[in-house]
Amino acid sequence: MRMRNKPWAMDFLKENNHIVDVDGSYKNNIKEFFNNDNDIHIEVGTGMGQFITTLAKENPDINFVGIEIEKNVLIRVLEKVLEEGLTNVRLLLYDANLLDEYFNEDEVSKIYLNFSDPWPKNRHEKRRLTYESFLSQYKKILNDNGTLQFKTDNRGLFEYSLISLNQFGTEFLEVNLDLHDEEDEDNIRTEYEEKFSSKGFKIYKIVIQF
Amino acid sequence: MRMRNKPWAMDFLKENNHIVDVDGSYKNNIKEFFNNDNDIHIEVGTGMGQFITTLAKENPDINFVGIEIEKNVLIRVLEKVLEEGLTNVRLLLYDANLLDEYFNEDEVSKIYLNFSDPWPKNRHEKRRLTYESFLSQYKKILNDNGTLQFKTDNRGLFEYSLISLNQFGTEFLEVNLDLHDEEDEDNIRTEYEEKFSSKGFKIYKIVIQF
Ligand SMILES: C[S@@+](CC[C@H](N)C(=O)[O-])C[C@H]1O[C@@H](n2cnc3c(N)ncnc32)[C@H](O)[C@@H]1O
Ligand SMILES: C[S@@+](CC[C@H](N)C(=O)[O-])C[C@H]1O[C@@H](n2cnc3c(N)ncnc32)[C@H](O)[C@@H]1O
Repeated sequence: MRMRNKPWAMDFLKENNHIVDVDGSYKNNIKEFFNNDNDIHIEVGTGMGQFITTLAKENPDINFVGIEIEKNVLIRVLEKVLEEGLTNVRLLLYDANLLDEYFNEDEVSKIYLNFSDPWPKNRHEKRRLTYESFLSQYKKILNDNGTLQFKTDNRGLFEYSLISLNQFGTEFLEVNLDLHDEEDEDNIRTEYEEKFSSKGFKIYKIVIQF
Repeated sequence: MRMRNKPWAMDFLKENNHIVDVDGSYKNNIKEFFNNDNDIHIEVGTGMGQFITTLAKENPDINFVGIEIEKNVLIRVLEKVLEEGLTNVRLLLYDANLLDEYFNEDEVSKIYLNFSDPWPKNRHEKRRLTYESFLSQYKKILNDNGTLQFKTDNRGLFEYSLISLNQFGTEFLEVNLDLHDEEDEDNIRTEYEEKFSSKGFKIYKIVIQF
């Protein structure tokens, strides 16, 4: 996600280092960041954070970690966390390519991928968040009953992901090829989800276990 | 598929016993029915036969077996086979529930399921042609490189099948969630495919290997 550069963004994030980790301070130590033993759910590529902040509000007993590589985007999530006074959210300015360096093995209960960048060209396959190198990392950091949930409007990425997740040996628990047809009350829409659904795109969802 | 009962249907099928097996005469002996050693591809639930007859015409060096449980439907396929003078098609008036009693192990190279009955109620799950008991049979009769191809317009059945095929341990080779968007020249439309596509339904396709 591209946002206009805000020169004050980094300062704003650093000032809130009780919520945001900009330099890997809590690597291998995320529990201390929360200061409790609650389950940890993470979202990779939060965008502006509507999803994770809504989910966190509804589930005060779960710890949520939002991971986003763009500081000019992450500040929007931070604003929401502060506005809502959420105490169960932490934000990482971090590259998901190195997820398994940040989290310990079996530390995470749930991973959310929402409307990840599609990288449609074949030569960019390795950048897709459902490419096998990412799946290896998710598998490592998720605990035994841990699940991965992925939503997207992008048909090509979803077709690719079905194949990639299958070939990696994951077990499909749920597949939905038109999530907003009889939308479940529980579904929390992301910013991209609102936008592409209103344009008439179908929303796809899958939940798997490693 | 329901068709008006035609009293002459059974006689017509029996008269053409060089093409049609109505009583399991060639059980465990399909090669003799063809009298050659070409690869065998089967379609389960042919309906009126547009798919298998077109495919057979384009591939004279492959043996095609069309399986259909309704005699009043199978006569329509027979008519097409006779009209086209196809020598590489055989038709079975047969229940797919007993597929592995008809074919030998590793005897089949490709299985086609097209627009199979969806059986949407949970209590009818076992009747779906992608239920595990059917998958076991397909696995048994397919040879090592054999593939199964499944097309449908039915979203519920396709979602179910993705999960069932994945949980059975099959390997996904190809997934298409909108086959008629940039339709491949190779695609041969079935009667149901024409009908539901023209009504605006998306056509789904998957190809797997056991
Ligand atoms: C298409 S946006 C979707 C945003 C949000 N999830 C939604 O549904 O509205 C993808 C987001 O993932 C972030 N992102 C992409 N690659 C990433 C990576 N390697 N690590 C962390 N975040 C990443 C982008 O900066 C962008 O904000
Ligand atoms: C919905 S129709 C689709 C026909 C055709 N494949 C098409 O796409 O136009 C399903 C067909 O499968 C046949 N069928 C259903 N269950 C079957 C079984 N157990 N064995 C053989 N044929 C079956 C039905 O009689 C019907 O003709």
